[in-house]
Amino acid sequence: MSEISRRRLLGGGALAAGGVALGWGAATVTDSPASAASPATVPFHGDRQAGIATPPPAHTTFVGLDLRPGVDRDALIRLMRVWTDDAARLTAGRRALADTEPELAAVPARLTVTIGFGPGVFAAAGREHLRPTWLSPLPPFDVDRLESRWSDGDLLLQVGSDDPVAVAHALRVLLKGARGAATVRWSQQGFRRARGSEPEGTTMRNLMGQVDGTVNPAAGTHDFDSLVWVDDGSWLDGGTSVVIRRIRLHLDEWDELDRPGREIVMGRRLSDGAPLTGESEHDEPDFGAVGPGGITVIAPNSHIALSRSLDRSERFHRRSYNYDEAPGGDAVSDSGLVFVSYQADPVRQFVPVQQRLSDDDLFNTWSTPIGSAVFAIPPGCREGGYPGQRLFE
Amino acid sequence: MSEISRRRLLGGGALAAGGVALGWGAATVTDSPASAASPATVPFHGDRQAGIATPPPAHTTFVGLDLRPGVDRDALIRLMRVWTDDAARLTAGRRALADTEPELAAVPARLTVTIGFGPGVFAAAGREHLRPTWLSPLPPFDVDRLESRWSDGDLLLQVGSDDPVAVAHALRVLLKGARGAATVRWSQQGFRRARGSEPEGTTMRNLMGQVDGTVNPAAGTHDFDSLVWVDDGSWLDGGTSVVIRRIRLHLDEWDELDRPGREIVMGRRLSDGAPLTGESEHDEPDFGAVGPGGITVIAPNSHIALSRSLDRSERFHRRSYNYDEAPGGDAVSDSGLVFVSYQADPVRQFVPVQQRLSDDDLFNTWSTPIGSAVFAIPPGCREGGYPGQRLFE
Ligand code: HEM
Ligand code: HEM
Repeated sequence: MSEISRRRLLGGGALAAGGVALGWGAATVTDSPASAASPATVPFHGDRQAGIATPPPAHTTFVGLDLRPGVDRDALIRLMRVWTDDAARLTAGRRALADTEPELAAVPARLTVTIGFGPGVFAAAGREHLRPTWLSPLPPFDVDRLESRWSDGDLLLQVGSDDPVAVAHALRVLLKGARGAATVRWSQQGFRRARGSEPEGTTMRNLMGQVDGTVNPAAGTHDFDSLVWVDDGSWLDGGTSVVIRRIRLHLDEWDELDRPGREIVMGRRLSDGAPLTGESEHDEPDFGAVGPGGITVIAPNSHIALSRSLDRSERFHRRSYNYDEAPGGDAVSDSGLVFVSYQADPVRQFVPVQQRLSDDDLFNTWSTPIGSAVFAIPPGCREGGYPGQRLFE
Repeated sequence: MSEISRRRLLGGGALAAGGVALGWGAATVTDSPASAASPATVPFHGDRQAGIATPPPAHTTFVGLDLRPGVDRDALIRLMRVWTDDAARLTAGRRALADTEPELAAVPARLTVTIGFGPGVFAAAGREHLRPTWLSPLPPFDVDRLESRWSDGDLLLQVGSDDPVAVAHALRVLLKGARGAATVRWSQQGFRRARGSEPEGTTMRNLMGQVDGTVNPAAGTHDFDSLVWVDDGSWLDGGTSVVIRRIRLHLDEWDELDRPGREIVMGRRLSDGAPLTGESEHDEPDFGAVGPGGITVIAPNSHIALSRSLDRSERFHRRSYNYDEAPGGDAVSDSGLVFVSYQADPVRQFVPVQQRLSDDDLFNTWSTPIGSAVFAIPPGCREGGYPGQRLFE
């Protein structure tokens, strides 16, 4: 019998009342083994961490942390054990061990917690020799206007849920658990359409209204697995890397462009995301097709032409979010994309694409990267373990 | 035949693709008159503005604007006409007239747009003599630590939806429409649980985990109507006022209090929101009940004892939201409540309660008002009109 069922029967414990909500978001905790597959919960334990191949929820907050001076391997192990215990409970709709607001834990709404390591973790843990060669800030690109307040960090917490209260609660629990070991360097709140507001599987639209995420290795395919998961027998085997780029969208200037212009810049139609040479969203673009004037229909320096590599290994899994913050000064909005991509090796897979885009993308006029961070995402863990165990022990 | 249906039949227009999403959030626009009552849309037009008596959606952003110098009555009327046209379209799931991202309009998810007037509107429009006597900043309270970046303003836009993309899109459209006349002074993003994550009608919990909103005049009752709507034959007849207080929650200090202590401070149980003298959430508190030690069970300086007036006219309709922003410095979180209340007369109904709370509320140790604003909310309008028309014309 699960801990919660027992509590509920005994009538005690804070969750007796909080745990019985009925919507899709509430954890339906029963004794049947099927409960782990309930639509409202995503299991924390597993060979891979959740939050990468799992469908993106409506809200995800990315938090970059700085380690406090003096934090060593033992302190990192303690932190990972605390985070693991908290995350395993919260994602199942159960209160965390030291949860001071246990009632807020009852609606996980597909909560996931994903943990990442920046370069600083390896130095602190005396594990520099195990640091992936690609784990450092990306090389500078001409388009970059990076601000340190959106860049880098020693640790990553990625917390996603269809419910913003679940995100806020989980973040507070996890950051309290990290208080002695790390401070918040930056925090980026991202959103997509609310769950249930569109048919499941609809490709997201960003705040320019573009269908964003069409050509993307699909979770569960061999393609995805070979591009995303590290498979080298190292401590990172079964893990991956994440690149998080905060990209400001120049919506005011974009407004001056008409729809045909906007479609040329991207190479796809705004109405349905179809390539300019196709009929519907998932049609294969024909980059060679030539129009009446003798020029290619999809411009060679359009975003989709340049972001596609001839080398099929130069691909990654995108899982981005919109951001929209309070505008400052005379501005009407402060909007953009928390661009997020997962790949086994960012230098080999991501950098060549970003380099091409930086050099020639028509879209550069209307977008500016203002933040950049790379983290190693260790593999998942079984009960009793924690992510990154093979690195530290 | 509605404009959208016509477009869809003709197969033209940007919405042909964008408007056919199937979830609860998408506008189901048909020719039947019932479409206005579709669960996904809340009509903009009506005797009252929407967003006050309508059920609170998951997300609401409140924006306070400053009028630009030189804006006069005519400019204000133009702005109101633009906002009205935009809001009427967007809340129905239709693109705004100058909508540069029309596809984002297709999922309103119960979008509402509510417009309010601060003191500056009356001066600008040459209507000082029609300014309600209560329309100025609230008197100062001892608990206040107000920051101007969260306070006051000449105009209010309140934009709510179950979908955060709908909020971002509507805000951008509306703020672009206001660009010549006003600038953003402050913007506060509030959230509650995602729609569908809890049974409809569940009282919200704030980020302290408290059930917040139990004792609240219910929309549609005579009680609500007489407390909330102005009924004096003036230009504001059918309108109301809103008080928006940004209240920081001291979660770190609150953590040091145990559950019994927390319950004494509020006078209600954390598990289910029942009064300390009762069994379930909506039981009437018994403020006279005395416990074994001879002291009252509900402390006379608890939040619920002090916020209840003997004078039943000193009540209002609360419709608050959580906020949770990126923490700064060493902090673990920056959380609180966008406390929002609607009442016909804030000075007569709200101020006495706030005064009592400021003087004696046990809860003051753990909460601090850092922002405060009051707006007059004009009545709604019919097609062809705009909110506040009787004031300006
Ligand atoms: C604000 C920034 C960006 C926006 C708004 C954006 C938007 C889009 C859109 C609308 C598409 C077409 C639909 C799709 O397949 O998803 C696309 C495709 C793509 N984008 Fe971006 N993008 C941005 C930045 C980036 C960056 C920084 C990279 C990587 C360096 C990137 C890589 C790609 C790739 C690989 C594709 C698919 C290309 C293909 O068809 O093979 N994008 N993007
Ligand atoms: C962060 C600030 C605040 C928090 C967390 C908070 C929380 C609560 C909670 C948990 C309750 C009990 C349940 C309920 O009836 O809703 C309550 C009741 C109430 N609060 Fe607050 N509150 C806050 C500020 C205020 C302010 C500023 C006012 C007005 C000046 C106010 C007025 C009331 C009223 C009128 C009630 C109902 C009292 C009754 O039972 O008759 N609250 N509040």
